[in-house]
Amino acid sequence: MNQAVRIIGFDPGLRRTGWGAIEMVSNRLTFVGSGLITSNNKDELAIRLLDLHTGIMKVLEQYTPDEVAVEQTFVNKDAGATLKLGQARAVALLAPAQLHLPVAEYAPNAVKKTVVGVGHADKNQVQTMVKMLLPKATFDSEDAADALAIAICHAHQRKANKLKFA
Amino acid sequence: MNQAVRIIGFDPGLRRTGWGAIEMVSNRLTFVGSGLITSNNKDELAIRLLDLHTGIMKVLEQYTPDEVAVEQTFVNKDAGATLKLGQARAVALLAPAQLHLPVAEYAPNAVKKTVVGVGHADKNQVQTMVKMLLPKATFDSEDAADALAIAICHAHQRKANKLKFA
Repeated sequence: MNQAVRIIGFDPGLRRTGWGAIEMVSNRLTFVGSGLITSNNKDELAIRLLDLHTGIMKVLEQYTPDEVAVEQTFVNKDAGATLKLGQARAVALLAPAQLHLPVAEYAPNAVKKTVVGVGHADKNQVQTMVKMLLPKATFDSEDAADALAIAICHAHQRKANKLKFA
Repeated sequence: MNQAVRIIGFDPGLRRTGWGAIEMVSNRLTFVGSGLITSNNKDELAIRLLDLHTGIMKVLEQYTPDEVAVEQTFVNKDAGATLKLGQARAVALLAPAQLHLPVAEYAPNAVKKTVVGVGHADKNQVQTMVKMLLPKATFDSEDAADALAIAICHAHQRKANKLKFA
């Protein structure tokens, strides 16, 4: 199995959605790109969701992934924050589904466990491991580093997962 | 001001999203159509959001509204339910924004207060008032009746509201 598989991970957030693209040939991973899609919190919600959707679509069209991985929303006690995250995540799931790309979802703890080895790893540990696993990786934000970690997690887990084809 | 303004209301839900279309000429309202967009709860979330998006887009393209009104998500203590509602609502806000239609949002209590006169009206009272205000209205579900109530609420409130143009 020497065919390259391109994976894009998304760490969705209404204000900032990180993305990270990697390529996998056999078990070797290489960095392709990373970045941040933002929306202005002074805009109306409909406009912010449109900006996220437009940004995510551009990344998908530019980097043409074979598979997409999205971080699962963490349902916490702050219902307002949960709601915002859910709205951003809905857009991150919808956009690849519109392009008929398979979408996998991973809980934050599963991503940390796969990439760092422990489910309660902190941001610095995640970033250090992303740099070790993808030496050429550059990322200008925590969210982009997290998105690369999500893509790495998917690269490791994809054989075990039943992929969800849109 | 005799120009007809067509309004579509959406009552978003992941399993069932109701829609209702009305037309307003001066202060006279007429029924145009109503219905239900559903997703299968056995499908993956990405597919369900795609089904909702496709359904909402079809309604918007078929009924060509001038303005859209969406019920605001009620943030309650059940974070899981709030999350699902937020995801459905994100799609209901995104779709009209993609068509550059102005989108207004109304809290459930504001809809009831405008249509029935009290914020704590029950479903039956809402449906009775919808039938009184739109004698020709037909709706085959609670969600479609609620969507018509949202459209009526917007018809009454739209002058007072600053519309959110996408």
